[in-house]
Amino acid sequence: MTDAAHMALWESLDLDIPAHDALLTVLGKFYGDIYLSQQGRLKGAEYLDFVLSEVHGLRIKEIQDAKATGKKVVGTFCVFVPEELTLAADAIQVGLCAGAKAGTEKAETLVPRNTCDLIKSFVGFKLAKLCPYTESCDLVVGETTCDGKKKAYEAFGEHVPMHVMEVPQCKGPRDRDLFRAELTRYKDALEKLTGNTITAAALAAATKVVNAKRQALQRLARLRSADPAPISGRDALLVNQISFYDDPVRFTAKINELCDEMEARIKAGQGVAPSGTPRLLLAGCPMAVPNWKLPYLIESSGAVIVGEESCIGERNTRDFTDETPTDLDGMLDALTDRYMKIDCACFTPNTERLDHIAAMAKELGADGVIHYGLLFCQPYAHEALKVGKAMEAAGLPYLAIETDYGMEDAGQLKTRVEAFVETLS
Amino acid sequence: MTDAAHMALWESLDLDIPAHDALLTVLGKFYGDIYLSQQGRLKGAEYLDFVLSEVHGLRIKEIQDAKATGKKVVGTFCVFVPEELTLAADAIQVGLCAGAKAGTEKAETLVPRNTCDLIKSFVGFKLAKLCPYTESCDLVVGETTCDGKKKAYEAFGEHVPMHVMEVPQCKGPRDRDLFRAELTRYKDALEKLTGNTITAAALAAATKVVNAKRQALQRLARLRSADPAPISGRDALLVNQISFYDDPVRFTAKINELCDEMEARIKAGQGVAPSGTPRLLLAGCPMAVPNWKLPYLIESSGAVIVGEESCIGERNTRDFTDETPTDLDGMLDALTDRYMKIDCACFTPNTERLDHIAAMAKELGADGVIHYGLLFCQPYAHEALKVGKAMEAAGLPYLAIETDYGMEDAGQLKTRVEAFVETLS
Ligand code: SF4
Ligand code: SF4
Ligand code: SF4
Ligand code: SF4
Repeated sequence: MTDAAHMALWESLDLDIPAHDALLTVLGKFYGDIYLSQQGRLKGAEYLDFVLSEVHGLRIKEIQDAKATGKKVVGTFCVFVPEELTLAADAIQVGLCAGAKAGTEKAETLVPRNTCDLIKSFVGFKLAKLCPYTESCDLVVGETTCDGKKKAYEAFGEHVPMHVMEVPQCKGPRDRDLFRAELTRYKDALEKLTGNTITAAALAAATKVVNAKRQALQRLARLRSADPAPISGRDALLVNQISFYDDPVRFTAKINELCDEMEARIKAGQGVAPSGTPRLLLAGCPMAVPNWKLPYLIESSGAVIVGEESCIGERNTRDFTDETPTDLDGMLDALTDRYMKIDCACFTPNTERLDHIAAMAKELGADGVIHYGLLFCQPYAHEALKVGKAMEAAGLPYLAIETDYGMEDAGQLKTRVEAFVETLS
Repeated sequence: MTDAAHMALWESLDLDIPAHDALLTVLGKFYGDIYLSQQGRLKGAEYLDFVLSEVHGLRIKEIQDAKATGKKVVGTFCVFVPEELTLAADAIQVGLCAGAKAGTEKAETLVPRNTCDLIKSFVGFKLAKLCPYTESCDLVVGETTCDGKKKAYEAFGEHVPMHVMEVPQCKGPRDRDLFRAELTRYKDALEKLTGNTITAAALAAATKVVNAKRQALQRLARLRSADPAPISGRDALLVNQISFYDDPVRFTAKINELCDEMEARIKAGQGVAPSGTPRLLLAGCPMAVPNWKLPYLIESSGAVIVGEESCIGERNTRDFTDETPTDLDGMLDALTDRYMKIDCACFTPNTERLDHIAAMAKELGADGVIHYGLLFCQPYAHEALKVGKAMEAAGLPYLAIETDYGMEDAGQLKTRVEAFVETLS
């Protein structure tokens, strides 16, 4: 897209143009430093670079063009919102989780100072008029996962059209019933929003699309068990980040191409880092675009990341939705089953997550685990202590890091990560 | 009780005797400064002084004696645990919420640093072996209200026999069903614990006891609308604090005596502070024994507190349980209705709380509202922003304070409170 076309698009969305320009400049430089500087990168990563360079351009244009034909856009903050239903209503689903400091001062008029940066960021992006995705949304779907988000949506809902799904806190039969009812309520909200009825046929087709995306992401995830590692953790994270707003069918095809290339590399014994490089599993809070700080620090400390145990990663792609039911009720049951498997720290108890982390580390040949907790995220801070104990029991070296989107602690974090990596080699 | 009898009691509970001695010394001094120094105190407050002076003595002896006859003791941290059911099973219910820094270092091995002091305190009291109530418990009941407690119970449950109740996050019909089922599950747990069957007759009798306690506390609360204020905020808070562990029938009688004395005072135009003293409503997080810091700061800054909009206060006493049902199912429905009215910040939305605060302020003739948020308590930090807006709309002066159990900020808080009080006179 030309500069003029970009500008017209952003003006039509009433973005704060000078602030948005400044943001893109910073992001461009950040991306160059962290991504374009990588050696021996996959050719297929060009797609990632392209998507990222047009993240506020072409993809927004596509979305706006779709809106012009009557399509609706739904924004989400959590992997509990079933994309299957959104697509079945012929709407577009985009992730609005944000990974950069923006509009923090404005955000702190709506949410408390002691709020995690992910929440402050999406609130800030809205209040400072910096996010073309948020501005494109016809409906924003929140969920009662953590206290921070649950309460933030109350204030945020005064600024966007909001639908809040109740996610239960345990996994008993009553909780399943509650979540099943919430799926129906979401389905009704989508039908009202779009004017489309969600038929069994539409939901079956949408489920295939979403499962195919998961399949491609799982294929990529499994290829990372190869030694040497065929893709950097940064690029793999980027793939998962892009999966939240790219067109799902195109994205799936592109990721499968990337996987073909990875397979060829693995066959040729090639990788992004020499065999013997310490391999790390990253576990914890989701890292939304452009939160690349910790992966970059890790991979510039002589280690390579081989997996992300997070919702922008394995937790979102591990489970498939059963495609066998043929009636709507059966399909909604299947969705309930699939989504109630998510091992988010918001559940109590959530011991299956500990098993998942140990299993992932083993499968991917990780030499150690780094837990990433976002400052002020209580659910994952609690689990960081538990994961530490579980990793000790499993004999896996472990480092727990708590940080935010600021760069003030980068030097100190690098020192800690380097010291940890050294113990592994 | 004699010193030797105290010592034998504490040793039998395996308390850390030297640390416990040190704690009691500090508390005694603190109580003297804050309570015994008050001018024109009610004569009935002698009961409060007595109970407090024997809080780790006589009441524990009573509880241990009851245990010796086969009674069971249930500890709680939240007003969502229905004392009606506990008493109906012929068990004793005690609040374990703690209001003092203790065992913090040990607590931080189980819960994250960024956890509210109320949680750190009850964890610390347990790990440091300082609380004879915790050590007396046969069952400890947690609930999924906030992230901090929900996740803390997972680790805490490795140190005490734990039952966790799921409290829903919204107030729709499914949520009511879920909570109703949780009441049944709690009833079953109590029956298993005590070996007693909860009959309709027992539950009816227990409901009368608990309602009578609420009635007395509501009577006291309403008398505080008089000008001059007939009781200090500190003493009224203490009454509510003691209500969580004293014998309910004795306590109710004593509080009604206190109310008689208050009525006589009011008739005589007497009070604890001259008419015209700025009257404040305190809203927010519960203040567990011996968290008297903010009330003391406020009342030593030329204001008087006329109400506590908190769970150690109005939120716990406002609603009565309907006594008309005669069968168990109907009674459990009545309990569900009563408890689902609680306007805790853990619910979304929770707008009724804003109305309750405004109504209380009006009814009690408050000149302003101070919101107390415990540092790292996210639900109440969010609501503090909302309460501020609601009070502005209601034309009520408002001050939001966030603090913890430490004394480091006392000077700074006093300055802020004094400045606020000055604007009211
Ligand atoms: S970590 Fe939990 S709250 Fe966050 S996106 Fe994942 S499931 Fe949702
Ligand atoms: S990082 Fe933690 S606190 Fe922040 S939104 Fe996610 S679960 Fe909530
Ligand atoms: S404030 Fe909420 S969580 Fe705390 S005691 Fe009250 S109802 Fe329970
Ligand atoms: S004060 Fe807040 S964070 Fe602490 S236990 Fe109560 S609701 Fe939870």
